[in-house]
Amino acid sequence: MKKIAILGSTGSIGRKTLQVADNFPAEIQVLALAAGRNRELLLEQVKRYKPRLISVHREEDARWLRDKLGEYREVEVLSGREGLLAVAIFPGTDTVLTAISGAAGLEPTINAIRAGKHIALANKETLVAAGELVTGLARQYGVSIIPVDSEHSAVWQCLNGEDIASVARIILTASGGPFRNFSPGQMAGISPAMALKHPNWQMGAKITVDSATLMNKGLEVIEARWLFDVDYDKIDVVIHPQSIIHSMVEFVDGSVLAQMGVPDMALPIQYALLHPRRVDGSVPGLQWPVRDLTFEEPDRERFPSLALAYEAGRAGGTMPAVMNAANEVAVAAFLAGKICFTAIPEIVATVMHGHSPQQYCSLEEILDVDSRARRKAAGLVDLWRAR
Amino acid sequence: MKKIAILGSTGSIGRKTLQVADNFPAEIQVLALAAGRNRELLLEQVKRYKPRLISVHREEDARWLRDKLGEYREVEVLSGREGLLAVAIFPGTDTVLTAISGAAGLEPTINAIRAGKHIALANKETLVAAGELVTGLARQYGVSIIPVDSEHSAVWQCLNGEDIASVARIILTASGGPFRNFSPGQMAGISPAMALKHPNWQMGAKITVDSATLMNKGLEVIEARWLFDVDYDKIDVVIHPQSIIHSMVEFVDGSVLAQMGVPDMALPIQYALLHPRRVDGSVPGLQWPVRDLTFEEPDRERFPSLALAYEAGRAGGTMPAVMNAANEVAVAAFLAGKICFTAIPEIVATVMHGHSPQQYCSLEEILDVDSRARRKAAGLVDLWRAR
Repeated sequence: MKKIAILGSTGSIGRKTLQVADNFPAEIQVLALAAGRNRELLLEQVKRYKPRLISVHREEDARWLRDKLGEYREVEVLSGREGLLAVAIFPGTDTVLTAISGAAGLEPTINAIRAGKHIALANKETLVAAGELVTGLARQYGVSIIPVDSEHSAVWQCLNGEDIASVARIILTASGGPFRNFSPGQMAGISPAMALKHPNWQMGAKITVDSATLMNKGLEVIEARWLFDVDYDKIDVVIHPQSIIHSMVEFVDGSVLAQMGVPDMALPIQYALLHPRRVDGSVPGLQWPVRDLTFEEPDRERFPSLALAYEAGRAGGTMPAVMNAANEVAVAAFLAGKICFTAIPEIVATVMHGHSPQQYCSLEEILDVDSRARRKAAGLVDLWRAR
Repeated sequence: MKKIAILGSTGSIGRKTLQVADNFPAEIQVLALAAGRNRELLLEQVKRYKPRLISVHREEDARWLRDKLGEYREVEVLSGREGLLAVAIFPGTDTVLTAISGAAGLEPTINAIRAGKHIALANKETLVAAGELVTGLARQYGVSIIPVDSEHSAVWQCLNGEDIASVARIILTASGGPFRNFSPGQMAGISPAMALKHPNWQMGAKITVDSATLMNKGLEVIEARWLFDVDYDKIDVVIHPQSIIHSMVEFVDGSVLAQMGVPDMALPIQYALLHPRRVDGSVPGLQWPVRDLTFEEPDRERFPSLALAYEAGRAGGTMPAVMNAANEVAVAAFLAGKICFTAIPEIVATVMHGHSPQQYCSLEEILDVDSRARRKAAGLVDLWRAR
């Protein structure tokens, strides 16, 4: 029996995780849930999954929930940072699934590791901002960082039974997003509504925009570097618009293993929670013969975010945290209609190039660098609007 | 250090195996070689690899070799069945790579197993004709049957670290051969020269014709049943003309693992001999982005051999041996210009449908059934010519 807490239970990954728990009631028990502002859905989740602790962002929503709990009033309801951290370290769980978007997932993840919890990681920004710190702590506390992203789950499945020293290259696949074939002129006119239509995956707004800029793939490159402890020279990206091959590993003998499946996050979530067992769940198999699988090089000029991520990863230290913070601010500004699509990587690049990366030892240093980069990016958003 | 004997050292797999040995002189030592009639090449192999024992088909070639050995005259030279069996059980080897074509590989393979040798199996007819006997003996003598065929090596690589009970389906890929898009009318006019042009792989004549009829894939289905101990209902075939994905495994959770690579037998041979280690050898990686990968259903009407193989496998007992024997005779007759291409499956079907499959316990029973099927098939070849 896996006993889990979910950070971000009302988001797309959180909801999918609860569906997986539905399929395996004898294997997965949900003990604690943290959500943002969707109090109605959280209330439904309480009634269905009967966790012992829940947390929401705002205390007023916590009060509303306490009012509505009725027969479930034994459930403890907390709020804010304190509540989130309490869910992360809730006693009795063995695994925390972190599905909060952005750098906000960093602090609870670190606290969960320090409390001896395994981390099922759907929050890639955690490893982007503080990969060295987080993986070092995981080693120190003897817990695993388990990939939930479909790409990293694919790599992990391909590495099953293999020696990491025999890896020649990790090849992350990218759908290329909705603007893969846009001309440079068309790129400038992309609206938030256009960017939110991913061709293959249903996901949250932030990651969907990141997919459209290819920053999502860049974040995944950095995440892969820390999850699998391989050098950036050994991580490549190939565009594969059908999203059927979720990623691949090439070995030194010339052999390539690829993991394929329908684009349904239930599969990597289930594998993260039940591995090494593979169990018949709700995910249908691919229908053979599948349609043609095609591959192309990413266009690094129209999608500069990918190169920025490699640059930040190779610079190391605080640079990936800075890149990630600037990107979060720029994506939010784009979604709010404040800047155009092509300004996202411009702002990220400007913030990065004004930063001298430094080694860091603590969460506090990373959070400090993160907020300074956010202020810098916010200033650039204002400048951009005034243009 | 792996100490090996090679049965069929002058054939395409045998030569490739020696190339692999060249790449890993500290890992692979060649102690014994058996060849057919290519005495000149065998003499070269003796000078280069310095085995202790060699064998050729005809005693006159053995005498010729003894004459020519010169400074290598300490090498023992045998001939015929006796020589082949001596190579198979040569003391000091741990692994016998069996790359003789056809049912002729059966007896030496069984003798090698009884002598405690692991079998690197490139002779698929061995498991087709006597899969139950051979795998039972391997268990009894505690030796492994290691796949060398690219498809089965692919499946084996995908199964690395996985539980065989979690396999939903093995999906063997087939190039479809040179006549994939031929009309039924065109099929009748296929010449041996046309059938010997495989689109992706350089192989011996018999297997190349089997690839063109899809009987090769049928033989591989039966081979997979015994190698991986799965039911025929869990083995599927998909046409994949590019031969980049060498085969796949679908698991019960909906995940599919695929093994890919350039079509070069050095890779599966090297993996068979050095596994679980993957070592940088002579095989280049795939160049990404690779061309489009396409998939289609096999056409079971134009290529009836595939259905015949499933039928024989499911009938079990002596039926696969009968099918295989009839196929060997029919393919030889086609290569000799005696029958047309579409007569191959007709003859195989007629021999099969005149046979009542029986359980068998010994090599002798299989060899007896095999020769009766060959006589029957030869008679049908004569009838066909007289038509």
